Amino acid sequence: MLLTLDCADQPGITAQVTTFLFERGCNILDAQQFRDPSSDRFFMRVAFDPAAHGPDDLREAFEALGKSFGMDWSITAQDRARRVIIMVSKFDHCLVDLLYRRRTGELAIDPVAIVSNHPRDVAIHDDIGDIPFHHIPVTTPTKPEAEARLRALAEETGAELIILARYMQIFSDEQSAHFAGRCINIHHSFLPGFKGARPYGQAHERGVKIIGATAHFVTGDLDEGPIIHQDVERISHADSAADLVRKGRDIERRVLAEAVRLFCEERVLLNGKRTVIFRG
Amino acid sequence: MLLTLDCADQPGITAQVTTFLFERGCNILDAQQFRDPSSDRFFMRVAFDPAAHGPDDLREAFEALGKSFGMDWSITAQDRARRVIIMVSKFDHCLVDLLYRRRTGELAIDPVAIVSNHPRDVAIHDDIGDIPFHHIPVTTPTKPEAEARLRALAEETGAELIILARYMQIFSDEQSAHFAGRCINIHHSFLPGFKGARPYGQAHERGVKIIGATAHFVTGDLDEGPIIHQDVERISHADSAADLVRKGRDIERRVLAEAVRLFCEERVLLNGKRTVIFRG
Amino acid sequence: MLLTLDCADQPGITAQVTTFLFERGCNILDAQQFRDPSSDRFFMRVAFDPAAHGPDDLREAFEALGKSFGMDWSITAQDRARRVIIMVSKFDHCLVDLLYRRRTGELAIDPVAIVSNHPRDVAIHDDIGDIPFHHIPVTTPTKPEAEARLRALAEETGAELIILARYMQIFSDEQSAHFAGRCINIHHSFLPGFKGARPYGQAHERGVKIIGATAHFVTGDLDEGPIIHQDVERISHADSAADLVRKGRDIERRVLAEAVRLFCEERVLLNGKRTVIFRG
Amino acid sequence: MLLTLDCADQPGITAQVTTFLFERGCNILDAQQFRDPSSDRFFMRVAFDPAAHGPDDLREAFEALGKSFGMDWSITAQDRARRVIIMVSKFDHCLVDLLYRRRTGELAIDPVAIVSNHPRDVAIHDDIGDIPFHHIPVTTPTKPEAEARLRALAEETGAELIILARYMQIFSDEQSAHFAGRCINIHHSFLPGFKGARPYGQAHERGVKIIGATAHFVTGDLDEGPIIHQDVERISHADSAADLVRKGRDIERRVLAEAVRLFCEERVLLNGKRTVIFRG
Repeated sequence: MLLTLDCADQPGITAQVTTFLFERGCNILDAQQFRDPSSDRFFMRVAFDPAAHGPDDLREAFEALGKSFGMDWSITAQDRARRVIIMVSKFDHCLVDLLYRRRTGELAIDPVAIVSNHPRDVAIHDDIGDIPFHHIPVTTPTKPEAEARLRALAEETGAELIILARYMQIFSDEQSAHFAGRCINIHHSFLPGFKGARPYGQAHERGVKIIGATAHFVTGDLDEGPIIHQDVERISHADSAADLVRKGRDIERRVLAEAVRLFCEERVLLNGKRTVIFRG
Repeated sequence: MLLTLDCADQPGITAQVTTFLFERGCNILDAQQFRDPSSDRFFMRVAFDPAAHGPDDLREAFEALGKSFGMDWSITAQDRARRVIIMVSKFDHCLVDLLYRRRTGELAIDPVAIVSNHPRDVAIHDDIGDIPFHHIPVTTPTKPEAEARLRALAEETGAELIILARYMQIFSDEQSAHFAGRCINIHHSFLPGFKGARPYGQAHERGVKIIGATAHFVTGDLDEGPIIHQDVERISHADSAADLVRKGRDIERRVLAEAVRLFCEERVLLNGKRTVIFRG
Repeated sequence: MLLTLDCADQPGITAQVTTFLFERGCNILDAQQFRDPSSDRFFMRVAFDPAAHGPDDLREAFEALGKSFGMDWSITAQDRARRVIIMVSKFDHCLVDLLYRRRTGELAIDPVAIVSNHPRDVAIHDDIGDIPFHHIPVTTPTKPEAEARLRALAEETGAELIILARYMQIFSDEQSAHFAGRCINIHHSFLPGFKGARPYGQAHERGVKIIGATAHFVTGDLDEGPIIHQDVERISHADSAADLVRKGRDIERRVLAEAVRLFCEERVLLNGKRTVIFRG
Repeated sequence: MLLTLDCADQPGITAQVTTFLFERGCNILDAQQFRDPSSDRFFMRVAFDPAAHGPDDLREAFEALGKSFGMDWSITAQDRARRVIIMVSKFDHCLVDLLYRRRTGELAIDPVAIVSNHPRDVAIHDDIGDIPFHHIPVTTPTKPEAEARLRALAEETGAELIILARYMQIFSDEQSAHFAGRCINIHHSFLPGFKGARPYGQAHERGVKIIGATAHFVTGDLDEGPIIHQDVERISHADSAADLVRKGRDIERRVLAEAVRLFCEERVLLNGKRTVIFRG
């Protein structure tokens, strides 16, 4: 079982939370606590053996303690597959990678829908099995309606996470706010470097020696959400812009998959414009 | 203040330890707990604000709790410089690096002695300020006596850590046992690959594409102690054996410095033949 | 067009080869020369604009020059898809990855056959389109016959490269010799570290902090062929043996794909027990 | 001996250059050629055994060929120590590192002067042996005079390279132009990310997961010169701004040392706003 929480810092949080677990016969397997000195906020993640308890049981019992500290908290079964909606535009390498890792058991995700602003045969060139595909086109006048459809779909399917797997449409501020903390985007660039639409072209022109990718939560500003994971690759003068795209694709799918894994394992806690990542 | 502990696992350890801290007004800043499923042992590190308490005060109070769980534990002031003995033979790049990082405040070490099996002018080509230098030659017949001298020196100086900074003499089993858990060696190889005296030569002959270095605790078997930190570097066919030595030197000093830092910050806990590293 | 060659070193090789190209109006785009001081052998790779010439044309013209220097050489069209046979046992992550990269144009391979020692539904859990699948079971008594079938298949299909994509059968010495220099294996370990069948288990027991994978040419000794590419990933005490397998899988497919790419771009030249890799 | 050159591309450059070497009995040991398709410029580096020839001898002979192709070229003895001026402000970690690597023979540099805008005891806290130290203060009114002093010093000492080893004064456009292609700066940031004076502070605020450093040639725009080398390090939420500075320092000195090594081995060729790096 997993317990995560964050709240304004004060002495005694860990003592009271772990005493709560101890009194119910739960045994801690792996836990981390962190106080951010700049925000004076406390973060905690506990993986524990729940003994005979189920999540509902523990949630009800934890309610009062959570309230007394003003916590954001969750108790959830470990290794439970998270219901996710995966969104793509025309590049499906991240989608294919996520589905492959799901099939091998690396990622505990349950894709309840795949959504694209393009038709099925344009968006995806691979077998997606029996995962429902939804074509939700987006044009300037239809954007509000398209966003409403996504929200409805998320509602119906009980989606816990929206994965923008190279989805090239920018969410409105309302949409970003609606999915705050449960929508991950892969930015095909090592932020805060080359923003915008063609970072590999810019990287090539500038002659950089390293490129990277960034997975982050979506906020109103597409390129500025709290960063979850980043990685880089070395390049050389002999790499053409096309080579950078190839190398970049590999980083993108690796970085996105890692960010999704961290999220599904409840290792990502929001800390204002930043994140606390409990890697264990 | 830092509290570290490990003991056979059972429910309630974290609850009782953090309640102990809470009752004394201490506030947790950064903490980690880990239960190793293979050894069924529990490990914990807590950095906390000690309020008005000093380390002696807290140690005395913690005694009973530590005993009741059969813990190995320590309470120690944070950022306090650890008294270290640095040992070298003929290559001083790791020594120079450690001293530089100490000077800049990166490493909280207080070198109480530098020891070499070679004379001062052979062993070191750099300024060591007023750190006492001890030439302790080692030959087969004098080895027991030389090892006794080191133990005496460690005793006199109150050394908390012995750093083998490319010290090329192998400790006897008795010496290794004497300094168990407080003697770090840098092995100029990516273990468990090329052991022995000339790993870079072997790596070159074998045509490997990556070389590395390993910092580990010293045990009877020089190349087999619990690993603390490792790092690697990419090489190519164009690298001569001499190039590998150059690149290796850079990895060695980086890896050793990181291992010493982890040790000084009480982030390294022994777990049988392995280590638990709480990176924070 | 690509020209690669190697021969015993002597002055004038580059001069004569590049003069040959210049006289035919060919323009050099990217080239490398390397003399290995330990083997006294010379290696060269030239990517050039062939003007009006085709490969056959240039091959015929180069014949005499190649002979005069005793060269191993090849002239081949650039970006031409190499005919490959991909062999798998029960883990298909490397196969899936290779096929995906082929589909996106990252890898210029033309899979003429997929071969497994297990039936189709055991070996592969993904769509392989219209690539012919061959089930060639291997038992001790049938091994010679099974190996003969593979040689015949390679012959019929004109396969230029055999990719052992986690194929768990060991080639006989005859088979290894037959495919020398055109059969790449991915070893699920950072050689020369943990050899044998369960390197991740060994890595976990030993408490190493970095794991890796190695792509190499197959020789009689499965784990000792000339190394083409290696990569590593950082691990921690919290990684179970299962986590190492997951991280290892990701490294394996990355390392194998890169080795295949290097091979297809004629960037890999054999140098006795080692390789020269012209990365460009 | 080393020959490097670049010129507008046309067929026959390699053929004529290597024939020139062959006719003089020189034997190629390691060479690379590269044509940049975007600038249509050709780059070449040749390490060769010069037989009985000295550099002056070969330079005179090469003059005509160089002129006929309009080449920028140089012929220089290999492993000859380059005369360098090292400039520092208040952080001497890069300086200390360069001097250490020189002492161990890793870097073939001959420091003809150390220059700081601060007095000796403010700028440097380490032994610099008998290398002349020059305090050249810089204020807005005295800047032209200070820059003239540096140019004069470079002239007198025959400095081939100016190394800005965390020198915090910005060169005027004239000064940058004067030292174009022979002045390397270490920027304590992974460009093009956080420019400006406090990149680690910015990186911390933004919550990035990777930091880096960039070594580049100095141009009028301090942060925009052609990039020679970059490297990165992983960071976490637990790293304070001070931790980033510590980790950054380690990257900085590593990246600068590598850039200086590449320069001294004539592996860096300017290509407009970018560089060609022949790593060999």
